[in-house]
Amino acid sequence: MSEAPHPFDTAIALQAEGGAFHGSTSPAYANMIGPYGGITAAQALAAILQHPDRLGEPIAFTINFAAALADGAFEIRPRAARTNRSTQHWTLEIVQGDGVVATATAVTATRRETWSGHEAEMPEVPRPLDVPRTPRRGVEWLNRYDMRFLAGFIPRDWKGQETDDSLTRLWVRDDPPRPLDFASLTAAADVFFPRVWLRRATFTPIGTVSMSVYFHATSEQLQATGDGWLLVQAKGQGFGGGYFDHSGQLWNEAGELLATTHQVVYFKE
Amino acid sequence: MSEAPHPFDTAIALQAEGGAFHGSTSPAYANMIGPYGGITAAQALAAILQHPDRLGEPIAFTINFAAALADGAFEIRPRAARTNRSTQHWTLEIVQGDGVVATATAVTATRRETWSGHEAEMPEVPRPLDVPRTPRRGVEWLNRYDMRFLAGFIPRDWKGQETDDSLTRLWVRDDPPRPLDFASLTAAADVFFPRVWLRRATFTPIGTVSMSVYFHATSEQLQATGDGWLLVQAKGQGFGGGYFDHSGQLWNEAGELLATTHQVVYFKE
Repeated sequence: MSEAPHPFDTAIALQAEGGAFHGSTSPAYANMIGPYGGITAAQALAAILQHPDRLGEPIAFTINFAAALADGAFEIRPRAARTNRSTQHWTLEIVQGDGVVATATAVTATRRETWSGHEAEMPEVPRPLDVPRTPRRGVEWLNRYDMRFLAGFIPRDWKGQETDDSLTRLWVRDDPPRPLDFASLTAAADVFFPRVWLRRATFTPIGTVSMSVYFHATSEQLQATGDGWLLVQAKGQGFGGGYFDHSGQLWNEAGELLATTHQVVYFKE
Repeated sequence: MSEAPHPFDTAIALQAEGGAFHGSTSPAYANMIGPYGGITAAQALAAILQHPDRLGEPIAFTINFAAALADGAFEIRPRAARTNRSTQHWTLEIVQGDGVVATATAVTATRRETWSGHEAEMPEVPRPLDVPRTPRRGVEWLNRYDMRFLAGFIPRDWKGQETDDSLTRLWVRDDPPRPLDFASLTAAADVFFPRVWLRRATFTPIGTVSMSVYFHATSEQLQATGDGWLLVQAKGQGFGGGYFDHSGQLWNEAGELLATTHQVVYFKE
């Protein structure tokens, strides 16, 4: 019996060629214009993780979206700018034709056992299976996730009723389920609809310009998380002059902090 | 009457040469090993701001510290990876000899008037002049700032009394005072002593590996802030496996959110 590959694995599949990696946008993760930013971020990180020179596991990853990707092929060009004894610094560009469509940096490192004590604690929430699946429609990538909102759902009525709190909190996992890894954790860090929509209940075109993920989990913890649920939340900070930012956290169902994330997003008006 | 230049202006002075910028570490901002990370970040951003091709004002800036800078000269190599109609994407390396000591990315953009409504509100605190200056000693860069702690001061007794909250909040300004600009705001985003020291009251060697600053202020707002005080705060999120991260905010005395910031920091044990 053979199984079809998971759409996420198909999306992040890359072809190595002389230090570069060839990939393609995935119709399964299509967004309004171009692909879901989370899948582009996952593809970029996947290139670093597949690089033969890579040392250790991801600690920090930042991707800047320079242009909407056109549907079709792209090339990822990662470079180890500096390799130390236990840390490595990466720079990366995603290129289509003659144009850079994204830049990224990453720090990878071999981790050691140290004191630990996470401060960002998972809030008390109902278990994921006790929460109904939240219907989402519109763009294709939404169908790749099972989302169960606990707070801060997309406005029902787009009547411009402003709120002062943009916290969104939800359970999320790949649909169909898939064992968690660093690439899919990175993709999940971008599942939040734009905070400015929640604050304003007004639709405005948006686009993430920069997203960072800080990894607090080891690959062993991700393996232990398996295809389980993630509790994820994000809350806006500053909004004005065409940009807003948010700060967020991702836990597994056992309450372990797997990653923190922040991003800054363009909005039109 | 001539005045000596401010030590910050001396520190960020760069010599342009064929697309690169030559600078030097500043003894006035020396840290335990190498320079204060905030001054290196400010120098990197200054190179982008001085670049003749630069479009607009900083929106997002991320710097990854790849190695301790040696005292002396360095070269900053910024590159506009993509220039759109109203946004520009920068990549940057700081090089000493043959080695990359830092990488960075930035997004600059021309801002437009839009809806605005900051969500990260300044907490209610006493005015800066009603708070005594907090004595700091040790490394030289501490003398370049007037700091007035309101919460989360460095442990008095390093006796390993753990706490569960690493929030630090203080008023800060350059000493001597200096009109705020994007470079000095970036430097101020790194003034926080390591959150892991506060949590553990135990000294461990540390080093920031990645810092991001999201700018919410325009140059007009920075000009209006002048040489006034900044209220800055940071709080840790995840700690373990040799790394922790924090999330922070910077306001001016009028309560305007000027920037948000994040960083991930190596700690030894």
